[in-house]
Amino acid sequence: MEEAYITLPKGFKASGVAAGMKCSDPANINKDDPKSSYLDVALIVSDVPANVAGVYTSNLVKGHSLTRTIDIINSGVQVRGIVINSKVANAGVGKAGVEDADLIAGKIAGLLKCDNNQIMTASTGVIGSRLPVDKITKAVPELVDSLSSNEEGAHNSEYAMMTTDTVPKEVAATITLADGKEITIAAQAKGSGMIHPNLATMISVFTTDAAISSALLDKALRKAVKYTFNRVSVDGDTSVCDSVIIMANGAAGACEIKEGSEDYELFEQALTELAEDIARKIASDGEGASKFIEIEVTGAADEYDAKLIVTSVARSPLVKTAMFGEDANIGRVLTAVGYSGAKFDPDKIDILVGGMLFFHDGVCVDFDEEEAARILSEHDIFIQIKLSEGDAYDRMFTCDFTYDYVKINGSYRT
Amino acid sequence: MEEAYITLPKGFKASGVAAGMKCSDPANINKDDPKSSYLDVALIVSDVPANVAGVYTSNLVKGHSLTRTIDIINSGVQVRGIVINSKVANAGVGKAGVEDADLIAGKIAGLLKCDNNQIMTASTGVIGSRLPVDKITKAVPELVDSLSSNEEGAHNSEYAMMTTDTVPKEVAATITLADGKEITIAAQAKGSGMIHPNLATMISVFTTDAAISSALLDKALRKAVKYTFNRVSVDGDTSVCDSVIIMANGAAGACEIKEGSEDYELFEQALTELAEDIARKIASDGEGASKFIEIEVTGAADEYDAKLIVTSVARSPLVKTAMFGEDANIGRVLTAVGYSGAKFDPDKIDILVGGMLFFHDGVCVDFDEEEAARILSEHDIFIQIKLSEGDAYDRMFTCDFTYDYVKINGSYRT
Repeated sequence: MEEAYITLPKGFKASGVAAGMKCSDPANINKDDPKSSYLDVALIVSDVPANVAGVYTSNLVKGHSLTRTIDIINSGVQVRGIVINSKVANAGVGKAGVEDADLIAGKIAGLLKCDNNQIMTASTGVIGSRLPVDKITKAVPELVDSLSSNEEGAHNSEYAMMTTDTVPKEVAATITLADGKEITIAAQAKGSGMIHPNLATMISVFTTDAAISSALLDKALRKAVKYTFNRVSVDGDTSVCDSVIIMANGAAGACEIKEGSEDYELFEQALTELAEDIARKIASDGEGASKFIEIEVTGAADEYDAKLIVTSVARSPLVKTAMFGEDANIGRVLTAVGYSGAKFDPDKIDILVGGMLFFHDGVCVDFDEEEAARILSEHDIFIQIKLSEGDAYDRMFTCDFTYDYVKINGSYRT
Repeated sequence: MEEAYITLPKGFKASGVAAGMKCSDPANINKDDPKSSYLDVALIVSDVPANVAGVYTSNLVKGHSLTRTIDIINSGVQVRGIVINSKVANAGVGKAGVEDADLIAGKIAGLLKCDNNQIMTASTGVIGSRLPVDKITKAVPELVDSLSSNEEGAHNSEYAMMTTDTVPKEVAATITLADGKEITIAAQAKGSGMIHPNLATMISVFTTDAAISSALLDKALRKAVKYTFNRVSVDGDTSVCDSVIIMANGAAGACEIKEGSEDYELFEQALTELAEDIARKIASDGEGASKFIEIEVTGAADEYDAKLIVTSVARSPLVKTAMFGEDANIGRVLTAVGYSGAKFDPDKIDILVGGMLFFHDGVCVDFDEEEAARILSEHDIFIQIKLSEGDAYDRMFTCDFTYDYVKINGSYRT
């Protein structure tokens, strides 16, 4: 689909405004700057109450906006929308954090004439600072007034979520169900550092106009994230705010998607494909990234070992800096597989990069340096690890480690 | 001790020569350059057969020089010395790797009139290339001829081990045993990237003129490395060549150190202190490092959780880049503790840096930015994590993540 934005599914509206967190004085905004440099509060709402499901960071420390959202989703209520702010993570500030988030949600709920707990909250940014509640609540009327189902409102909501992301991440797909009706699924996300399974400094919102129960939505979402969102690693850090939320409002007017049906299969498949698409975009736009790297293992003893291996390679700063430097130091991949903790016979491992064999049966082959240089000069790098232990497969998306990663993260707070 | 070098213990000699791996044409060496830029083969020998112990990388893939050394130590033979080369790791090249190492050791053994298997081998450098056996064996006569117990020979052997290390790492201590005799322990090491517990791209050789059995030496060494070498993390990568080897030749003429004796306690303590000293030097001189970072946890539920926590913080690129940028983004420490996998109450965690409190009971305190800036401008950064789960303690040494790390590792092979 050429145009992809979060309000493509029927019955959704979105907006994004500048509350003065990214740019302290909204009067001083230079409209020639990218919108992601000043928009900082996003709102995505469904016209009617929507079913909802979510998956969240495995970090024991969770942001307060997120714990509030988890409580809402667990309560089984139908939601109206989600407000998302960038710049301040609303984490590590104690009880006040939930109260702050609740106050902002309440202000929006008042204008939308719904309950507080129908407005979910998400925050991303620096940990340990209170949300500037006054600034945000002051921006709420404009946020609600500017809600729109058109493309601009949707893109604004995406820009407002972005932190160190350099490009917006928006996807959508339309599928035809058994009753001939079309339903649409769309999603947007922000990356881009502190990213590692299980979830990252990553917030992704999906919308769909399909009719589907929250329980089934939850099942489909969990399936969709497993080899997609949970296979993205930028730097091995898992943030306290990560979440993937999906809202389904039934506005397409199609039959309800039931468990075990062909429609469900279609829905789950489309959701998984969109999740993979977004996951690739997140890895590609990892902080400071100059390359997208996909790591695949086949022939591992079992799923557990397969995951250990791709995770180990994806986390290795030595592999990631070598890819940045376009240096065919593929021994570092072998090393990372070796210390992964997975069991395998080191004399029966093949390693290919860009389809070219570098290690065969654990021994470095006499490879063509010129062809290796050409492969490593590509933006997309595909690393394949072939073992002979069993038939388990896994894969991971990551990016290279660059000067810019260090630059961005050496002065993030300031 | 002011002067520390590997041949301080009696009955040891060392040398380091340029075989043409670091500098392809030894005739072209500029003697004004640092010796570490051209010396590339080191030899450390005991005048008489010595007892020996070693601890090695936990990487499943092991370098061929190292596997040969492990076999020697496991065979229980008394050794005469160790030859160490930099630039080529002698790993990932198959059966030829052990044969290459054996050939070099054999050449040295011939000149020293001992058995091949009394000369251990160690290699560090790029994985997947054969050792240039011709170059190295050609350099062997000079290597053996220049063996010396004086300071220069010892320093040369250290320079020859170094890769991206910027400073030599040499320590020594003398202790007085119950019989009034003095024994000396000395050590040298190379760092400095691909470093993570359990061992790293790290080769460290200890010598001592104490009389002590191989079995007891092994016990003391294992105890000494636990909270020292196994608590250094530069980048989370564990290399295939890491090893700590200790040779004891009894040349001091002191009584044998027996298990359970006060002498053993003294010996183990001195060995541990030297190991800690070297471990700190390795972290300080981590690739591209501008800062030394010590991470301590107290009050963890158990040893396992304590280690998870310090490892997680020490590995976090976000913590390490923030320290490089001297940015008081201490929420990233909280985040790394949160995703460590350890169990703890997030509402009962204190985090201090340089003695200053940043998080109390999981909540960011209102800290003095100026004082924080001063603390973070120091070279040595001490991060304390205080939990209320139990009384387990651990600590880890690491360094910051800098532009230079990326630079060094983006073009290591070339």
